[in-house]
Amino acid sequence: MSAFPVPDSSKLRFRRRVFTRWSDEDNQNVLNNAVYMTLFEEARLGWARELGLLSGNHFPFLLAETHVRFVAPGKGGVEVEVELGTTRLGSSSFEQAYRVRELATGAIWAEARARLVCYDPATKKSRPMEPQFRGAIVAFEGLVDGAADGPAA
Amino acid sequence: MSAFPVPDSSKLRFRRRVFTRWSDEDNQNVLNNAVYMTLFEEARLGWARELGLLSGNHFPFLLAETHVRFVAPGKGGVEVEVELGTTRLGSSSFEQAYRVRELATGAIWAEARARLVCYDPATKKSRPMEPQFRGAIVAFEGLVDGAADGPAA
Amino acid sequence: MSAFPVPDSSKLRFRRRVFTRWSDEDNQNVLNNAVYMTLFEEARLGWARELGLLSGNHFPFLLAETHVRFVAPGKGGVEVEVELGTTRLGSSSFEQAYRVRELATGAIWAEARARLVCYDPATKKSRPMEPQFRGAIVAFEGLVDGAADGPAA
Amino acid sequence: MSAFPVPDSSKLRFRRRVFTRWSDEDNQNVLNNAVYMTLFEEARLGWARELGLLSGNHFPFLLAETHVRFVAPGKGGVEVEVELGTTRLGSSSFEQAYRVRELATGAIWAEARARLVCYDPATKKSRPMEPQFRGAIVAFEGLVDGAADGPAA
Repeated sequence: MSAFPVPDSSKLRFRRRVFTRWSDEDNQNVLNNAVYMTLFEEARLGWARELGLLSGNHFPFLLAETHVRFVAPGKGGVEVEVELGTTRLGSSSFEQAYRVRELATGAIWAEARARLVCYDPATKKSRPMEPQFRGAIVAFEGLVDGAADGPAA
Repeated sequence: MSAFPVPDSSKLRFRRRVFTRWSDEDNQNVLNNAVYMTLFEEARLGWARELGLLSGNHFPFLLAETHVRFVAPGKGGVEVEVELGTTRLGSSSFEQAYRVRELATGAIWAEARARLVCYDPATKKSRPMEPQFRGAIVAFEGLVDGAADGPAA
Repeated sequence: MSAFPVPDSSKLRFRRRVFTRWSDEDNQNVLNNAVYMTLFEEARLGWARELGLLSGNHFPFLLAETHVRFVAPGKGGVEVEVELGTTRLGSSSFEQAYRVRELATGAIWAEARARLVCYDPATKKSRPMEPQFRGAIVAFEGLVDGAADGPAA
Repeated sequence: MSAFPVPDSSKLRFRRRVFTRWSDEDNQNVLNNAVYMTLFEEARLGWARELGLLSGNHFPFLLAETHVRFVAPGKGGVEVEVELGTTRLGSSSFEQAYRVRELATGAIWAEARARLVCYDPATKKSRPMEPQFRGAIVAFEGLVDGAADGPAA
């Protein structure tokens, strides 16, 4: 598989502290791999709340693709900090990068990239990114919109 | 993010039927993204059992990297067929490809690749692939071992 | 805590085979206790489907109370049979009993009772049991309706 | 089912704040019932840590029985406070009571009782409660040991 870059922590502007649960460990005594998807999702939740992007308790986008690198075995029942940055804005989708770090030790557990597609929960179909949505991300990330508008579909 | 190929179904020799659970749907009424990791893991479980690779109920390898494409929204409470193929054998790791298909409709929900690293649960460290382990995979996949031995670490 | 009776298997008319997942085991190498709730729910899903009680993929009732006895440690990655019987019908709620048995060994892992309240997903409020709903349960369980209509609220 | 008492909040001395996750909501847009078991477990984790009862990351006891009353629909992605008190100490088991309260609103979501059995992870068998274990609980709860030693097995 191809190596993939995740930006330095200094470039990932949003941070959210999340707790792993005791039962997140599987019978190998490590955080089960599926739980990382939930940690990324919890970071997206905090980010989408802060930017005012949620519709009630619903995300107006769906995960379309993700690439995850598991760097070190994780633990249940501890606090982690998840870093999140939006790395690309397309016309109906956007890309993000994440890094999970154990708070007590600073150890990196995982890094990931994801592509999210704007989505209308009512019609269950993808849709163009709304200007307000785009504006909120551009403002938070300190992007010049045109420069960010890359090949993501 | 870069497109990534997943081999045709005819090349993915192992199949396992798995049930999604009602509670696997999240509040958007679709299969939550983390559940796909569990579906791939359940396929690996069936494959590792069939090839005699498990140590008790433990996997002798850990997930090191995965790349997942979500093709269509999944549903809870239905049966899926997960296709699995081993696409590369390295000296201490191997790569696999997966495809999740809803059984009733044939619809593809997701495709993925993964890199797994051989691991000793006793020492919690990676280790070279054992000859018996390698032999079982080569035999199942109908590989010529030398040809399969590629750049995966 | 008080002992509570669960009817003999011969009295629990509905059976559903369910698979536990590898990741259902926690770091004590036993099925995590929360998973049993999911096993009971999967049995209710099969039962509600067979009796035609679901609204789309939604249950028209919510769990109001449950009492679970954990009899023996469970395992991930195996098949179980969940027994289910409806033991009481009230005006807006009903009670059920469950038993989880490992298929390969016949070992009982858990027994439980539950009280479910009829619920309108649109208003998010409880509501009286609909005659069609009641009729389907009475017919399946072979109950004489009056006799079953006990103190459950 | 029989009503069961859960002591007043003033009697439940241990408190732990826990976050529900976005994906804890099921397709009915409420916290799935199985998640409550995890909330109680997270409270036990905090309690067992504070009292020095854990062996590494393992509990030296298993859940033997629980009785849960679901009072109001819960939500994902919010903070709750779980109250926990130990209500009875037996020779090899003990009983606890729990209450889950949404932090922002004070709304009670669930109340429960549980019986836990002391357990040796090495032998996978139950065992008598160790004096140090008992002493830590007696001290924390402010119990007079003899008075607490009731009919729990």
